[in-house]
Amino acid sequence: MNAYPIVIENTALEWLSSFLSERKFSKILLISDQHTRKHCYPILESFLPPHEIYEIAPGEIYKNLDTCQLLWEALTHRKMDRQSVVINLGGGVIGDMGGFVAATYKRGISFIQVPTTLLSMVDASVGGKLGIDFKGFKNHIGIFCEPEAVVIYPPFLDTLPEEELASGFAEVIKHHLIADRERWGTLKQVKDIRNQNLAKIIRHSVDVKQKIVEIDPFEKGIRKALNFGHTVGHAIEGHALEQGEPMLHGEAVAIGMIAESWISMQRGLLAEAELGEIKELIGRLYPGRQIMEVDFEVLYARAQNDKKNIGGEVICSLLEGIGKPLVNVAISKEEFMGALTFANIVYGF
Amino acid sequence: MNAYPIVIENTALEWLSSFLSERKFSKILLISDQHTRKHCYPILESFLPPHEIYEIAPGEIYKNLDTCQLLWEALTHRKMDRQSVVINLGGGVIGDMGGFVAATYKRGISFIQVPTTLLSMVDASVGGKLGIDFKGFKNHIGIFCEPEAVVIYPPFLDTLPEEELASGFAEVIKHHLIADRERWGTLKQVKDIRNQNLAKIIRHSVDVKQKIVEIDPFEKGIRKALNFGHTVGHAIEGHALEQGEPMLHGEAVAIGMIAESWISMQRGLLAEAELGEIKELIGRLYPGRQIMEVDFEVLYARAQNDKKNIGGEVICSLLEGIGKPLVNVAISKEEFMGALTFANIVYGF
Repeated sequence: MNAYPIVIENTALEWLSSFLSERKFSKILLISDQHTRKHCYPILESFLPPHEIYEIAPGEIYKNLDTCQLLWEALTHRKMDRQSVVINLGGGVIGDMGGFVAATYKRGISFIQVPTTLLSMVDASVGGKLGIDFKGFKNHIGIFCEPEAVVIYPPFLDTLPEEELASGFAEVIKHHLIADRERWGTLKQVKDIRNQNLAKIIRHSVDVKQKIVEIDPFEKGIRKALNFGHTVGHAIEGHALEQGEPMLHGEAVAIGMIAESWISMQRGLLAEAELGEIKELIGRLYPGRQIMEVDFEVLYARAQNDKKNIGGEVICSLLEGIGKPLVNVAISKEEFMGALTFANIVYGF
Repeated sequence: MNAYPIVIENTALEWLSSFLSERKFSKILLISDQHTRKHCYPILESFLPPHEIYEIAPGEIYKNLDTCQLLWEALTHRKMDRQSVVINLGGGVIGDMGGFVAATYKRGISFIQVPTTLLSMVDASVGGKLGIDFKGFKNHIGIFCEPEAVVIYPPFLDTLPEEELASGFAEVIKHHLIADRERWGTLKQVKDIRNQNLAKIIRHSVDVKQKIVEIDPFEKGIRKALNFGHTVGHAIEGHALEQGEPMLHGEAVAIGMIAESWISMQRGLLAEAELGEIKELIGRLYPGRQIMEVDFEVLYARAQNDKKNIGGEVICSLLEGIGKPLVNVAISKEEFMGALTFANIVYGF
């Protein structure tokens, strides 16, 4: 596992260029959306050998089977074969879906991830999780399959809106909370994300995730630590999507981390002061969103159907102090409800 | 690879029963079609713990994304989780598609194959190939993923129509042609398939296939020998399906084996006498079908888009004598056309 290169540097596009010449793929199809076509493709273009482009509509709502069908048709139409390669130029939607399409086309052809958002750089680039949403459930259909390479070019982040940068930073926060107590002291002081040394932060996050994924590639144990904040977060994100008011992934996970930290504190695992630090950092960096009390039941039902669950119980990952995850914890409905109430309070709703 | 049990015996259902009690899956969903529901499920039912059934329409034309969506919905609706299992009771359509659905649901849950046709017993049960048809291309979308177990209960074959039995027997013939010169002497004399010792024949075919797949799980080299007869066969089968006159897989492969044996003979790889034996056996057991000359070009274009191909050339597996495959052979358009003409001649069309 993880035998593929993850290149993170300002010369990453030169690296990609050499990689493609060496590998001599029979055909190259680049998948982009309107944003990455406009902002990133012009930077990338000159580093690529002859290729074709397929542009999809941007946004999580298109991460579905209909778009997959368009993509499979595009590959078929171009007579892509098992020596061909798909380059996914975009955020999580393009990486997850373009990867899934490539990995299932003719039972799997090569693909290269070129993430353009902070979220996809620190999260989707490691671990081989691919997939699409289905009937409002996030990543409900998918597989584990690794790319040929991940090419991270930090200057792409200069093209990214502020809220997208913050969304990705939620995973950076998570990686510190589950695995790096030492660096947390510095991280908790962050006020302006764009002023940070992002290349260094991406490398740190990729290293944390890679170490965990190497030990547990199929998410049988410790990898579940990466789900911290995601049990509650996914429920909120999926529901918001279904309601036609989509949230950025990181914004939902930020709320989820507050909620799951609160449960950890309630259980006496996390100190009250630690919870305070977490809610202060997140409260400062994310806008929050009020969770309506009428939706609490719906969110709980949604969490029950989360991939991570076993037999109807809601399972999540908690913190036994900062830097120390505790996986496979069944939480009660009361805890879930209480955590949502707490998240509302943090934001003064 | 191939660490999963393949049980072939008249007590296979007892074995399945113990396996299911041991593994304590959280939920069991059995996928069947109208035929297997009627003919096989009543035999199987008493061996299963509490379970639910989902019935799909029978036939290759339903091996598509629409049916997958129904199945993914059925799993979601039943809140199946990663400790649940899908049991695929049926032929290749149910095994390939039910397996694909399970292997992509929540990034993969367990599934057990209970093949009910000779074809699926000798072919689909080994090697982990899963998938569905797309836009008229056979198994165009799919992955490699292994089941928890394959349970082969030979008496299910008593419920199988004659032509279905013959269809499966084409793969048995193929396994002899690519790997067992010694037994070919006996096999070539077969006149009545049902009178054979089918359990023994299935075991032989499974062993042949398993040995090949173990050496080359991802079809980089020798596994391609299993594609013998399939380059031409798939083109014929896919085209027939698209024309609304579907053929059984084995019938198409039988024609494909005649065609590809002819090419082998033309190249001086296969003796004329050997070609004679092959066409005699196949001519005796299969009805054949006239390939219209107006369709030759379409079939060739279809073969060019076969998964096995590289950069527009048609690649197939030939025979260097019976029992000895030669993989990765690029064949010319003239050879392809000549082979179709020869297949017509064998059947007197």
